Amino acid sequence: MPQVRFDTHTISAGALKQLTVRLLEGVGVESRDARLVADMLIEANLRGTDSHGVARLPHYMRRIEQGSINPRPELAVQEISDSCARVYGNNGLGQVVMQRATVEAISLAERSGAGWVSVAGSSHCGALAYYGLQIADAGMIGLVFSHVDSMVLPHGARKPFCGTNPICLTVPREKSGAGQLGSGALCLDMATSKVPWNTVANAATEGVPIESGWAVDAEGRDTNDAKLVSSLYPFGSYKGSGLGLMIDVLCAVLSDSPFGPEIPAMYGDLSEPRRLGGLVGAIDIGRFVPLERFHRRIAEMIHLWTALPPSEPGGRVLFPGQPELEHREQRLRDGIPLGHNLLRELESLAHQHGVGPLFDQLVLPDARPGAPHIIARDVQSVLGSRSNEDEARVERLN
Amino acid sequence: MPQVRFDTHTISAGALKQLTVRLLEGVGVESRDARLVADMLIEANLRGTDSHGVARLPHYMRRIEQGSINPRPELAVQEISDSCARVYGNNGLGQVVMQRATVEAISLAERSGAGWVSVAGSSHCGALAYYGLQIADAGMIGLVFSHVDSMVLPHGARKPFCGTNPICLTVPREKSGAGQLGSGALCLDMATSKVPWNTVANAATEGVPIESGWAVDAEGRDTNDAKLVSSLYPFGSYKGSGLGLMIDVLCAVLSDSPFGPEIPAMYGDLSEPRRLGGLVGAIDIGRFVPLERFHRRIAEMIHLWTALPPSEPGGRVLFPGQPELEHREQRLRDGIPLGHNLLRELESLAHQHGVGPLFDQLVLPDARPGAPHIIARDVQSVLGSRSNEDEARVERLN
Repeated sequence: MPQVRFDTHTISAGALKQLTVRLLEGVGVESRDARLVADMLIEANLRGTDSHGVARLPHYMRRIEQGSINPRPELAVQEISDSCARVYGNNGLGQVVMQRATVEAISLAERSGAGWVSVAGSSHCGALAYYGLQIADAGMIGLVFSHVDSMVLPHGARKPFCGTNPICLTVPREKSGAGQLGSGALCLDMATSKVPWNTVANAATEGVPIESGWAVDAEGRDTNDAKLVSSLYPFGSYKGSGLGLMIDVLCAVLSDSPFGPEIPAMYGDLSEPRRLGGLVGAIDIGRFVPLERFHRRIAEMIHLWTALPPSEPGGRVLFPGQPELEHREQRLRDGIPLGHNLLRELESLAHQHGVGPLFDQLVLPDARPGAPHIIARDVQSVLGSRSNEDEARVERLN
Repeated sequence: MPQVRFDTHTISAGALKQLTVRLLEGVGVESRDARLVADMLIEANLRGTDSHGVARLPHYMRRIEQGSINPRPELAVQEISDSCARVYGNNGLGQVVMQRATVEAISLAERSGAGWVSVAGSSHCGALAYYGLQIADAGMIGLVFSHVDSMVLPHGARKPFCGTNPICLTVPREKSGAGQLGSGALCLDMATSKVPWNTVANAATEGVPIESGWAVDAEGRDTNDAKLVSSLYPFGSYKGSGLGLMIDVLCAVLSDSPFGPEIPAMYGDLSEPRRLGGLVGAIDIGRFVPLERFHRRIAEMIHLWTALPPSEPGGRVLFPGQPELEHREQRLRDGIPLGHNLLRELESLAHQHGVGPLFDQLVLPDARPGAPHIIARDVQSVLGSRSNEDEARVERLN
């Protein structure tokens, strides 16, 4: 896994959430929605998915100010049958729209055993795990898909078509822990690109070469120079390439939204709505097998899986979602590391919106400002020392 | 793509299907089921997926003779709701069981917009595309999953856990062509291992080394010696590894069937039922967006996708399922290439079951026996010159 070393401050999750709520309210987001979005962003940070955490907040605020994200959308939910529905997001924050779809999918699956909710008129919705884990916590299997603008090469092509189109599959492995989102779940939440956009951005920032086979330049040539990267390879060759395309079909064509190259770029014209689609599915496990039996079998499965001999001495065999759970535990205890540049940006926004004192409560008293913090996971963004160009790279990831 | 060169005869699809029907009837399979299974096997051969074609017929017959596959199963279909059902296969041929589940999933989706059918008591069901394409031909999105016994390493482990657990996603791209299964569909049908088992078997047969990163020996060490291979790497590192595990959950845990290491090996005790599970899903597109609009948008998407500039001069950017469609067209015209050893096996079975004359009609009059035939796709099996050991390797693939 690529590493990047940068200076951070360690931030209290609670104070960060408070500040995020107030900043979103400051640009007109309804209080309930602001709390929801703040919870999602901080949850992503806690789980180590910093690329989908508060680092995206300034971007959302800019889009709201420039009119492409509607801070007070009127969502339209159309139930088609006891197992199918459509949600139209009215260009609201993606988190608000996908959350509505998730609640609807769970509700349909409670009623009929299965729910599929097709989403249109949405925007960037953050990490899919948040939605999938709620479905798992409801005793269901979650299948969540989203798509983004074009930045991944189809297998055998030298120009991109799909985005990093992620898939998230979740299943409960035990009764959900009180207040601990998805603490009792398996969660596979993965992009269909080979490496995340921000791993390349990290390398560009640090001035180190990237491996061959990760990405190409504007001419479609494999490149080791991170600064020249234009598009990413799909993961798993033609398999990830095909999966990314099928996810675009599920998100875009089923909801009659733009696909791949048609999708307005996240970091393009900030006054143009993204018109993103999505698909949220839920299967009520208890209809097929008693939920307690299911939990017991998953526990047996995970016991055997994690007890397998590791390929490297001292290594571990992790289940899908385990790294995120471990991050969550550690960061709830020790705080969330945020880079200096992001903090400066949040500080400026806080003052601009009259909540400067809230910002001042962010940094934990025992944090050692300036102490190097090693981020070992490739979901980590490069907030510590990014330039505007890096920001563009990081933004495109999402 | 790995290649292997061996001698074949070119066989007429029609005659091969006739022979297959009679051989299955010869071991007690009901006539209707025999026609169904024969159609599936020959369809797999036509689509170039020879590993899932008639090469598997002798194995099925042996399992029927040894009692682990029930040639006349009483399938139990339990409808749980308008969108959920369970199918118990009574240890029937996997094709018969999964076909029943597919018909049920389509029927549920016609009724409610969504169908999920959980399968238990099944056996090896062949290539998933056959089921997914029927769902696409019904104007629906197909999501089909199956699992097999343990032979793929989890990411970071040196012992296997899951099988090559495939996922198949299908969507219609135009009105289905009359009598041409899935001719108007996108079809992603992929195993979650990095390379198919039979690519390794090919290399073993041909005595050529395999690439590092494909497979490991019994001690979990990466090996270049195909003859030492014990387990395969997952495709796409931790992503394919996690996907394989989630597919095992969908197939095994939801249906209360054995998972991974618990599953009786395909090539183990032939008198022991496999007790395989599966999951078949269907989404009725017309509930969400007019089907004609969907077709038109998919056509636009595929037009743009296939028109992308190739990474290699003269290369092509193919859509999921396109290679199989092209194989099908060519083999319908020119016949199906089968290896000598498989033909000898079929000849012996034909005589044993009193249908020798049917065997004699197999070889096309203009075929040139002994002419080398280059198989360029890694789904090709090594039927031309396999030993019993190779047979075991090839069988395990499925």
